[in-house]
Amino acid sequence: MDLIEKYGRWAVVAGASAGLGLAISEAAARQGFDLVMVARREDVLTQSARNLADRFGVEARAVVANLASPEIGETMRSAVEDLDVGVFVYNAAAEPIGSFLDLPVRKQIAAITVNCVTPTLLTHQIGAQMVKRGRGSIALVTTIGAFFGSKLVGSYAASKAYELNLAEGLWDEWRDLGVDVLAYVVGSTATPNYFQLPEASRPDEDEAVEVGDALTTLLNRGRHPMLPADVASRLFDVLGAGPTQFSSPIDERLVQRLESLPRAAAIRMQGELIQHMLELQGARR
Amino acid sequence: MDLIEKYGRWAVVAGASAGLGLAISEAAARQGFDLVMVARREDVLTQSARNLADRFGVEARAVVANLASPEIGETMRSAVEDLDVGVFVYNAAAEPIGSFLDLPVRKQIAAITVNCVTPTLLTHQIGAQMVKRGRGSIALVTTIGAFFGSKLVGSYAASKAYELNLAEGLWDEWRDLGVDVLAYVVGSTATPNYFQLPEASRPDEDEAVEVGDALTTLLNRGRHPMLPADVASRLFDVLGAGPTQFSSPIDERLVQRLESLPRAAAIRMQGELIQHMLELQGARR
Repeated sequence: MDLIEKYGRWAVVAGASAGLGLAISEAAARQGFDLVMVARREDVLTQSARNLADRFGVEARAVVANLASPEIGETMRSAVEDLDVGVFVYNAAAEPIGSFLDLPVRKQIAAITVNCVTPTLLTHQIGAQMVKRGRGSIALVTTIGAFFGSKLVGSYAASKAYELNLAEGLWDEWRDLGVDVLAYVVGSTATPNYFQLPEASRPDEDEAVEVGDALTTLLNRGRHPMLPADVASRLFDVLGAGPTQFSSPIDERLVQRLESLPRAAAIRMQGELIQHMLELQGARR
Repeated sequence: MDLIEKYGRWAVVAGASAGLGLAISEAAARQGFDLVMVARREDVLTQSARNLADRFGVEARAVVANLASPEIGETMRSAVEDLDVGVFVYNAAAEPIGSFLDLPVRKQIAAITVNCVTPTLLTHQIGAQMVKRGRGSIALVTTIGAFFGSKLVGSYAASKAYELNLAEGLWDEWRDLGVDVLAYVVGSTATPNYFQLPEASRPDEDEAVEVGDALTTLLNRGRHPMLPADVASRLFDVLGAGPTQFSSPIDERLVQRLESLPRAAAIRMQGELIQHMLELQGARR
């Protein structure tokens, strides 16, 4: 059974104009889903939607909206209420990076809106429709940093822990109701928003990412981010395999390595990686 | 060196009028800390503050405030800016319990404010003062449900995952700056706000909580919640031992058992416990 038959005709992607969100929209279109693409930047978004509609012969609607706005619930309700939404992917994220005290607290609180409040609201709205129809799937995109706290990305990683935990709980609550919920854990990916490292690796080159001790593995993974297209395509392979799926087996092993350590050691190690990557990024600017 | 000498003279407890927060305030007073007790209910709070001041000969200020209010930052700033705050405990929590779709989404979003936004804001404010002084300690109170998602407490458990992760990251960021941050993981406790089960166990009776397979352990722990006074007193024993400390060794072993399982199994098991406890609670109403 293909995904459209199983879940419904429309895929809604929040945070869809660039990077991983655009790749997820493209992967959905490739599966034959019609698209509702949600993002803030009108020009980029409408351009992307038109492009995907042309290339894949699907319908693609652009919903220009600020995912931090208090009106986002109403905006999304009117955008999707008449649609048979089969897949909802919440990929949007605000990513304040830096030391907790250096980052303005208002910026960190705004990130909680985008990363916690809005996915809760939209999952409630769209999930209610799916449960009523007895089919559908929801993926909340989260990161490796959700499993342990990390310096330099403190409240950001925390908000990703929120999404991980929420998706897991809903997976259990809805798994007998026909609605698949997934926490999709994405490791380093070469997107414009996050660590911009040039040497992205293909999955078939993953042996280049040596899985040694946990720190070596972390650092190697950091140096060889995945391509958004690969992360996006895997999402559709694992949609029904919740509660928790990783963008690559390497990332899953990496979290397992960290989990085998005392918690303090895992936290310090993750912090070293973040610091190393921020330094790398700084050096390339 | 006693805690006051190490950290500073005042203990600030958010969510202090009843249950665990009151017990934490009492444990702080017992250590000799002067108190700033923050909660919403004026009568209960001022009564509790007066009571502790009388019994322990400390100063105890009641700050009547709604921890969900946008003014909470200003309220707290004026309440503590002239004080040498040594300990800040964020124990307040909104706990929407029930299935995700049955709970009004507005109520769940309000809980994000109390459980995520306000601790971030107050930790930023008070933490900045502590880092400047080069001493202090902050504890964010979280729960076992923070480690894995759970049905019936979906967004609540998720918000507790936020606090767990945030405290851990800040522990790493501030550990060389003289400020101890701790995620304090509290298991079932006999408080008025949460599962109200009568047969609380003393830690020295903890052998009554049989640690069998993970589900048995979970259920036994659920049937034998700890007393708030014991959970509070342990907090002051482990303040400097972050990043992550548990209210009892049983709870720590319990999380370790769950972590040894495939994630889906741990999530289902935790969900069974929650469901069982809600049924128990319903039967006693």
